[in-house]
Amino acid sequence: MARTGRRPGESDTRAAILTAGRQAFAQHGYDGASIRSIAGAAGVDPALVHHYFNTKHGLFVAAMEFPVDPGEVLPVLLAPGIDGLGERLVRFFLSVWDSAGDRTPFFALIRGAVSHDESAALLREFITREVLGRVAAAVDQPDPELRATLVGSQMVGLAMARYIVRIEPLASADAETVVAAIAPTIQRYLAEPLTS
Amino acid sequence: MARTGRRPGESDTRAAILTAGRQAFAQHGYDGASIRSIAGAAGVDPALVHHYFNTKHGLFVAAMEFPVDPGEVLPVLLAPGIDGLGERLVRFFLSVWDSAGDRTPFFALIRGAVSHDESAALLREFITREVLGRVAAAVDQPDPELRATLVGSQMVGLAMARYIVRIEPLASADAETVVAAIAPTIQRYLAEPLTS
Repeated sequence: MARTGRRPGESDTRAAILTAGRQAFAQHGYDGASIRSIAGAAGVDPALVHHYFNTKHGLFVAAMEFPVDPGEVLPVLLAPGIDGLGERLVRFFLSVWDSAGDRTPFFALIRGAVSHDESAALLREFITREVLGRVAAAVDQPDPELRATLVGSQMVGLAMARYIVRIEPLASADAETVVAAIAPTIQRYLAEPLTS
Repeated sequence: MARTGRRPGESDTRAAILTAGRQAFAQHGYDGASIRSIAGAAGVDPALVHHYFNTKHGLFVAAMEFPVDPGEVLPVLLAPGIDGLGERLVRFFLSVWDSAGDRTPFFALIRGAVSHDESAALLREFITREVLGRVAAAVDQPDPELRATLVGSQMVGLAMARYIVRIEPLASADAETVVAAIAPTIQRYLAEPLTS
């Protein structure tokens, strides 16, 4: 039964679910982890997981401490249509990442994905389903899935070069310079012919 | 005195220098490591390091087991000039990476750079000096260093998406499809106005 109102131990319960969620996602992947098994590992009723996190998606976003929930943000960015989408995507991600700092759990997730195959599989499943799938659905061109992964490749490369490996002058360039440089790349991947 | 000809123990000596080199690069970075100190750690004369590896650059490339030496390859790719350089760079890197497999020490270096600050600093120094510096010198446009790092961001992102995180369909796309999609991005970063 879902509880409402604060009571002693509530934050402990939430933390126990998050811990069990992280372990389950790491062990079974995003698709393989279930609310039921996570609730069992945390010693709580599955209804309590739904109470705190609504869905498996919500639990994952909370467990990985994403700075934003792509399930909330992407529909807003995609809504105005394909025109200017490259610029909206780049400007939005820079606004989040530039203020996040390189020690956030989000960058730890990227670091983990590069170091460990299980983390790579986890990030791949989530990005493919929750991010690239939404972007691909907005594309009105041949090869929407390939186009979405090309967008992903440039955005991941930007995160690596600007925040993780910190290669200058890209690491310190002001945001508008980066938007002007990279938005046309994203826009071409989304909406223009992919031939040289 | 440089030795020529094979003799018992020669491969041990070379291996000892490589081990000392890897330790010195990890500890002091590319700029901070010296042939003299590496020779000292390996218990050999500095002349022997020069004999086996010629320069610090050569020792680093051997120690990191780069699939190719950027100091040899880049001048060849850059020689015909800026026209078509994007396509030559993407096609060349794909030809190396597609055949390298994801378990090569080269990808281990990228993984290490993401996981450890010391490895990131090492890769940053080497890439900035030996790769991006050469590319920037070939650019005949404003902001050559920024342009070189933008090229680097897309190439690192391609390596991440195609080989390390393996996001489909980019991971399995045939090489010519990838060249057609990404070469114009690289060419724009090198030679076209960076405004949207």
